Amino acid sequence: MVGGGQGAFIGQVHRMAARLDGDFQWVCGAFSRDPDNNRQTGQALALPEARVYPDWETLIAQERQQPPEARLQLLVIATPNHLHVPIARAALAAGIHVFSEKPAGVDLAEVQELAAELAQSKRLYGLSHTYIGYPLVWQAREMVASGELGEIRKIHVEYPQSWLGNAEDDGSAWRADPALSGAAGCLGDIGTHAFNLAEFVSGHRVDALCASLAIHAPGRRVDDDVDLLFRTRQGASGSLIASQVCSGEENGLKLRIYGEQGGLEWHQMEPNTLIHRPQQAPARLLRAGIDRPGLHPAALERMRLPGGHPEGYFEALANLYRDFAAAIRCDATGTPAGVPGIDEALRGMAFVETALASQQCDAKWSPLELNA
Amino acid sequence: MVGGGQGAFIGQVHRMAARLDGDFQWVCGAFSRDPDNNRQTGQALALPEARVYPDWETLIAQERQQPPEARLQLLVIATPNHLHVPIARAALAAGIHVFSEKPAGVDLAEVQELAAELAQSKRLYGLSHTYIGYPLVWQAREMVASGELGEIRKIHVEYPQSWLGNAEDDGSAWRADPALSGAAGCLGDIGTHAFNLAEFVSGHRVDALCASLAIHAPGRRVDDDVDLLFRTRQGASGSLIASQVCSGEENGLKLRIYGEQGGLEWHQMEPNTLIHRPQQAPARLLRAGIDRPGLHPAALERMRLPGGHPEGYFEALANLYRDFAAAIRCDATGTPAGVPGIDEALRGMAFVETALASQQCDAKWSPLELNA
Amino acid sequence: MVGGGQGAFIGQVHRMAARLDGDFQWVCGAFSRDPDNNRQTGQALALPEARVYPDWETLIAQERQQPPEARLQLLVIATPNHLHVPIARAALAAGIHVFSEKPAGVDLAEVQELAAELAQSKRLYGLSHTYIGYPLVWQAREMVASGELGEIRKIHVEYPQSWLGNAEDDGSAWRADPALSGAAGCLGDIGTHAFNLAEFVSGHRVDALCASLAIHAPGRRVDDDVDLLFRTRQGASGSLIASQVCSGEENGLKLRIYGEQGGLEWHQMEPNTLIHRPQQAPARLLRAGIDRPGLHPAALERMRLPGGHPEGYFEALANLYRDFAAAIRCDATGTPAGVPGIDEALRGMAFVETALASQQCDAKWSPLELNA
Amino acid sequence: MVGGGQGAFIGQVHRMAARLDGDFQWVCGAFSRDPDNNRQTGQALALPEARVYPDWETLIAQERQQPPEARLQLLVIATPNHLHVPIARAALAAGIHVFSEKPAGVDLAEVQELAAELAQSKRLYGLSHTYIGYPLVWQAREMVASGELGEIRKIHVEYPQSWLGNAEDDGSAWRADPALSGAAGCLGDIGTHAFNLAEFVSGHRVDALCASLAIHAPGRRVDDDVDLLFRTRQGASGSLIASQVCSGEENGLKLRIYGEQGGLEWHQMEPNTLIHRPQQAPARLLRAGIDRPGLHPAALERMRLPGGHPEGYFEALANLYRDFAAAIRCDATGTPAGVPGIDEALRGMAFVETALASQQCDAKWSPLELNA
Repeated sequence: MVGGGQGAFIGQVHRMAARLDGDFQWVCGAFSRDPDNNRQTGQALALPEARVYPDWETLIAQERQQPPEARLQLLVIATPNHLHVPIARAALAAGIHVFSEKPAGVDLAEVQELAAELAQSKRLYGLSHTYIGYPLVWQAREMVASGELGEIRKIHVEYPQSWLGNAEDDGSAWRADPALSGAAGCLGDIGTHAFNLAEFVSGHRVDALCASLAIHAPGRRVDDDVDLLFRTRQGASGSLIASQVCSGEENGLKLRIYGEQGGLEWHQMEPNTLIHRPQQAPARLLRAGIDRPGLHPAALERMRLPGGHPEGYFEALANLYRDFAAAIRCDATGTPAGVPGIDEALRGMAFVETALASQQCDAKWSPLELNA
Repeated sequence: MVGGGQGAFIGQVHRMAARLDGDFQWVCGAFSRDPDNNRQTGQALALPEARVYPDWETLIAQERQQPPEARLQLLVIATPNHLHVPIARAALAAGIHVFSEKPAGVDLAEVQELAAELAQSKRLYGLSHTYIGYPLVWQAREMVASGELGEIRKIHVEYPQSWLGNAEDDGSAWRADPALSGAAGCLGDIGTHAFNLAEFVSGHRVDALCASLAIHAPGRRVDDDVDLLFRTRQGASGSLIASQVCSGEENGLKLRIYGEQGGLEWHQMEPNTLIHRPQQAPARLLRAGIDRPGLHPAALERMRLPGGHPEGYFEALANLYRDFAAAIRCDATGTPAGVPGIDEALRGMAFVETALASQQCDAKWSPLELNA
Repeated sequence: MVGGGQGAFIGQVHRMAARLDGDFQWVCGAFSRDPDNNRQTGQALALPEARVYPDWETLIAQERQQPPEARLQLLVIATPNHLHVPIARAALAAGIHVFSEKPAGVDLAEVQELAAELAQSKRLYGLSHTYIGYPLVWQAREMVASGELGEIRKIHVEYPQSWLGNAEDDGSAWRADPALSGAAGCLGDIGTHAFNLAEFVSGHRVDALCASLAIHAPGRRVDDDVDLLFRTRQGASGSLIASQVCSGEENGLKLRIYGEQGGLEWHQMEPNTLIHRPQQAPARLLRAGIDRPGLHPAALERMRLPGGHPEGYFEALANLYRDFAAAIRCDATGTPAGVPGIDEALRGMAFVETALASQQCDAKWSPLELNA
Repeated sequence: MVGGGQGAFIGQVHRMAARLDGDFQWVCGAFSRDPDNNRQTGQALALPEARVYPDWETLIAQERQQPPEARLQLLVIATPNHLHVPIARAALAAGIHVFSEKPAGVDLAEVQELAAELAQSKRLYGLSHTYIGYPLVWQAREMVASGELGEIRKIHVEYPQSWLGNAEDDGSAWRADPALSGAAGCLGDIGTHAFNLAEFVSGHRVDALCASLAIHAPGRRVDDDVDLLFRTRQGASGSLIASQVCSGEENGLKLRIYGEQGGLEWHQMEPNTLIHRPQQAPARLLRAGIDRPGLHPAALERMRLPGGHPEGYFEALANLYRDFAAAIRCDATGTPAGVPGIDEALRGMAFVETALASQQCDAKWSPLELNA
């Protein structure tokens, strides 16, 4: 792992999720530019001192020297955003698979370069859109894909949070600094999750959007709030709301999709229920659980417990690790099946850039043109 | 009552709601152009035959002749939209108070004429934005007004329905005919409710919007779906979603408002709970009930029962009738306190016209300029 | 109406509910032993002074003298419990239909006398178990009756309230006085509602129970809390909980029934949703609304509005009045179809007496033997 | 681990939960009497062949020979119930800590012998009442202990499941065989969980109960359904419901506690919300999350993620493992702090035996006399 030293939330989350199914073991890291933090994080993981590296360049250079059976197989990137692409490219070039925190990079151009690097590398690249790991998200996707809802007309996705209500709340300093995090704030941080979820479940591709970004907390330099309308190539329309200043909200990612024959609703905060509202019959509560009726195989194979034993965020991320492990075992390249990958990275960055452009522009609709 | 013959949903609703508190008695009507329906509706109300009139013109002309103590005091207008203003103007001119179904008219110009008529009439005019009759809507308004949420930053309102999924579903023929219902479909029908609720609770005034209207059901001639972004004069931003093609939804009017210090959420379908999410404390469930703690007087006086005895849609509408009765008793003129009136009529029509204009226009933001 | 003067909650509730559908008009009353209250209540109803009587005996005697077309048809009894039976008997003897607040009386013996009186009277008797008026309660009953759940195994009913947390809270003085309210407190007040609901929906008849009553508020003289186990003649078992000292609860009547093939759950506080959990398929949310799918006619005919327009407590009671009106119109006698009547009165009193006996007794099971 | 071979649900659950925080590593096992299953389970865990033992006796004998630093530290017992105590005693005697699946044994007598063994062993014993691992269960316990609810009056706990609706559903054959699982069915399987949760949160001790057990599925030999009333030494009363034939239910463990000043409600299926209903103020939703307001330290230290990132069943069990690891590190003996242990084992068995006795007995109340 690069980044994710003690005190960095997301690093610890990856370490726990990757352990759950027993497929991965942590073998080395460059966790922090602070040598104490770096060393302590390594110790807490019981890593040999020699494999706790001072920086990511050293990590990659040294691991490259390890004998194949001991060498790092998968590098998890949990640094500030501006390093995602440089580290990922270096790792792929060194023959190491990459699992990157999102957003994939700070602009589309560098992610396109990353895509080119990946194509030549015979390695795997995954992007931690964790929410795609929830089993009922797959259930929803399968129901849409199978035509159970009829032609999709509306897609509404929202992601209200409250934790950046004041500029001083900005967790890490880097997050508020466009040079380190990219030009987008809330848009890149959680807007991309909402966008990814909407495209993943619907199978639709947004091809035009109209964005209204805002900075509500005085003194902040990047957007903390996003409202946007969109249209898809396949003919649906809808809205995307993301905000980090919705007081009192926690982590309210929610998706609703409506087709001619029915609608679906899923809330990340109660992830084990998927509400299905057929147009002509009472609503059904599809529930997670290996013994629950009405579930598609793609959902079932992402569950570990019978109904009523809640699985949550760690298990969702663990599902991505499990799929990553399977892809490594069968020598896959490119994007591991079941894991968001380079296409999602490209779509996400194109979404961010289009929304930023829309915000600057007086025209109602801005095209999102990337094919991926 | 004009309109609302047997089989017309909303007429029957008004008749029941007006009876609940015993303030009103039905005395005459012109319920339907179909003489049989007209007569039967009158009989079901035990009206004397002589006061069941063939048309609204006759009704107004004849009631005018009645001695003051017997004369119709309040005329309820439940006709297709294009007649709302002509009937209202005639009634006011005849000295009869008016309670009109919404939308107030088919365009802003005629509603402005109505406003002028009202100003000279010394009579009362109310508009049946029924949802304003819910007690916890008043609770929310009071909490915003008292500053409990701090400065308002975000307003999201939504109103998904499913009942017009196909063009053939269009209840009454007139609803789908722009000549009778106005140029707006879903926008005028329920978009105005959502808009009214958002402005009522927040106290903010939308001053710019960006609309995306759609016709999803093939063959329909007016919009059946509305997504729009807006900004308010007071500095908030947000979204308004209204749709009649969200399969499986019922009558999902929902409002969320976020200020610096907390957020509120209210669902019309579970109207006896108001969720208050302070930024720094656990969420609170404010519950309707004359014995419930934490409620403002404006909310309490609109409740009839202790907590846990659900009041609903009829009671909300009955609250408007109750306020109307109070205003009549004290010889008020203009808008009865507590009841949406001519200002809401004007704002609603301006909203509709601005949204229609925005839909036709390539610019992102269309100003909504009316002061009311 | 006898009883229910201003300030008495339930009288006002009856007056509103009876008006909703326009079937009834209030014509006379003896509302309070306090002459001022009595007069004012009559005035608020615009009753002629001559028909506001000083006491119930006078009311019955005088109304008897009225010409048939003007005479009181239905007497609503909203007095303290000990008067329910005497008034009801006198009214029936005078040829007046009776709608009585529950409990039917203070002991089983007097209700059996009432039953005998009723059998000879050619009049109607109803008991205001209001919750039976909810449409989805009928939906549940129909689903059980039609065998959709298979053979019923378990019935759990509960009714937690909080309003009598302290002895001083006891609303009316009479409620806490066994001489006026009967020997049962919470048991008679709300335990009977829970019992009635369970028997009504399941169609089962409790034939043995084991009760644990308690007085939690120091100084109270009758039970304020009931836990009991029961068995039914048809082979189900279950529990009934009722309490008026469950701090923070409102009016939480809730029923769950489980059969071999599925379960049902209904909450009075959210009465427009019935949860159906088939054993082999995802749970379904059956929703109230005249346009909602999956509903039995007996439920549909008790609804007035489309889905998502909440109906509540007043509408439930109004449904009993509507059925009462229908029974009067067709000259029915005994129990009006659709309204809890003398059988429910007898069962309820037998339940109360058996539970009181069980509380005094060391044996586990006490038989409930009444056939009704 | 003893027991828990492939296909055995609970073994796999322990393996995942124990890994989450990285405190434990699986080093040996005797997973199944089926040699193939045993070997394959060991391989899936990458165990050396030599430490996959044919039976538990061999496991203990061999591990005893290992040098201290390599030796098994903690033995997880996931066998049929009748082996829990024999294995636990042997392990403790061999100086190995024990974490046992519940119930602790098949009768109270053998668990008392186990307690004696433990007292002499200087080792640790934990019992996997997993639900005690949920952070908001600790929050509830702290709120009760601190007097926030006032004196506790009522405790209602319920645990409906549906998975044993038919006798053929009985997962493992042993579960339905009293010789292997003990004389109690549902009572021991999940009734003990409900009992443990109620005593843990309330701090009360049940001292009398009245049980009604049933066998609803034809052909089953042990109870599949439990209804019981209870009283506590501290003066509260309440009910406990547990069933495995409540069609359509999943794993509905739910606790409600009411004191003079307020009530609490917690559902295992939505474990990240604790409803607090003060008697005199609106209900509060206490939510899990390391950044959430209003939480006690004992709750906070059992959470890993910010609000809105759901943690679930694995994390609850992982909390028990985390506390076990801490106790091992500080050389504690007896019961590891934070983990249900020998007292809970004794109370649970006494509860089971008292309920079985009550079922056989005509007296209403059976005393539960064990002090623990």
